[in-house]
Amino acid sequence: MKLVDLFDHFLIDLDGVVYVGDKPTVGAEETLKALRQFGKRLIFLTNDPRGSSRDYSEKLKKMNIQAGPDDVITSGMAIAHYIKEHYQLNQKKAYVVGSPALKEEIEQIGIKLSQGEDGRKADFVIVGGHSEFHYEELKYATLAIRNGAHFFATNRDPVFPAPEGLVPGTGAILASIEVASGKKAITAGKPEPIMFEVAKKVLSSQERTAIIGDRLDTDIVGGKRVGIKTILVLSGSTKQDEIPKSEIKPDYVINDLRDLLKEQAPITKPQVSNKSETPNSKP
Amino acid sequence: MKLVDLFDHFLIDLDGVVYVGDKPTVGAEETLKALRQFGKRLIFLTNDPRGSSRDYSEKLKKMNIQAGPDDVITSGMAIAHYIKEHYQLNQKKAYVVGSPALKEEIEQIGIKLSQGEDGRKADFVIVGGHSEFHYEELKYATLAIRNGAHFFATNRDPVFPAPEGLVPGTGAILASIEVASGKKAITAGKPEPIMFEVAKKVLSSQERTAIIGDRLDTDIVGGKRVGIKTILVLSGSTKQDEIPKSEIKPDYVINDLRDLLKEQAPITKPQVSNKSETPNSKP
Repeated sequence: MKLVDLFDHFLIDLDGVVYVGDKPTVGAEETLKALRQFGKRLIFLTNDPRGSSRDYSEKLKKMNIQAGPDDVITSGMAIAHYIKEHYQLNQKKAYVVGSPALKEEIEQIGIKLSQGEDGRKADFVIVGGHSEFHYEELKYATLAIRNGAHFFATNRDPVFPAPEGLVPGTGAILASIEVASGKKAITAGKPEPIMFEVAKKVLSSQERTAIIGDRLDTDIVGGKRVGIKTILVLSGSTKQDEIPKSEIKPDYVINDLRDLLKEQAPITKPQVSNKSETPNSKP
Repeated sequence: MKLVDLFDHFLIDLDGVVYVGDKPTVGAEETLKALRQFGKRLIFLTNDPRGSSRDYSEKLKKMNIQAGPDDVITSGMAIAHYIKEHYQLNQKKAYVVGSPALKEEIEQIGIKLSQGEDGRKADFVIVGGHSEFHYEELKYATLAIRNGAHFFATNRDPVFPAPEGLVPGTGAILASIEVASGKKAITAGKPEPIMFEVAKKVLSSQERTAIIGDRLDTDIVGGKRVGIKTILVLSGSTKQDEIPKSEIKPDYVINDLRDLLKEQAPITKPQVSNKSETPNSKP
């Protein structure tokens, strides 16, 4: 049996699964092509709030992977959806500490953006990691939140890999604003359920859905929280020997995306058998 | 009996005790003058790492309060002393995320400063709040610490009062670097003992020494940790009704500095009598 046959929908993390930095992972191009030919629905998820769905769609196209903007959900898009659904936005203003893509995402749900000093009077503060972060943003975000603004962030990843090494991500910038404001933000990115909820709305059904990710603490934890099957792929940040040490147990573990299509299961799934044995072994 | 008669040395917090922002507190000028006339040794302490001892000395002079640079200990000066005493500095480089005053303080102990991208190769990272903080600093500090640099900060105060409201302090900026680096900094400011240790070295003896401060969580906790008497003054951030609610019990509570000199004790010291009763009431 092939792993692919168990599912109709795949939520697929990008960095570490489909590519690492700017390089596609082994077998990504041909495997994703095959999945589409089998009629599988593919939705790509990324916690990285620096680009728009369109940006990621174009990045994938350059790697010969076909994915329209509608097939990509970013953490920025997810938090924008969440705000739109839960708050009255009429006449409201948002102060966005983040990339141009995040600002656009927030504007698209119908909130006006506050600029500079006006930020302190905003009704919403939305934080996403970006490389132009500076003290003024930290200050106006803090003043707005202390003044009662609702407080959100795209995700909590403390660092992300860059050519120079692990560099500060949204989680680091967010920490400064949380410490100064004394408040905790609502976040959307994996492992939080908000991003998965947005993905679910795109899908016709949550049945036969799996998430494929390279991180136990975001992709796998997140999938488990919303009750879908989880596939850990070892092409990114998690190494084989970390799996037994972790309390987080994915349903399936594969070496790279090609394993989805292999007849002779190369899949290690010790966790699943352990889990199903436990109830059976009850007296 | 006057409270002043119990002590020969006073460690005096600045903001909230001697002044609030740019305004001297009630009775500060005449009380401090009287203390000097009685031959008391006064040392001023501030967690604010944005100015040098000289800057604070000048600020005090403008308020008619005589205090030379040697009478003022800043958190920047304290962390610089600490580094000088505990590390070999020969050929070492420091990346300072902080004000020009902090950079000068660090240079004066004989470490060369790294600038810009060179920061990532620094042997020491020293953080102090400043209004020019930006992502590049966050990134180079993170890379240096992840690369093994020793990690320090002046203090952990999350916010400080400004005309606009409570704005982010060193603690907020520090949080972003701690989250991204996965490491905790050694800090000098109150309530940490480092600042008090530096003050002790200036004094001939620690006997008959008291700290006068307006914050329970920094001044009073810090004084208790190093075993000196603590005097809470209500001219700053702590209000009378917060005292019974707090677990932190100052030895004395006064309304403003003038109470130090009053014959008819206006001093509330319920905590001291409670404390001394507890052991006596044991069977």
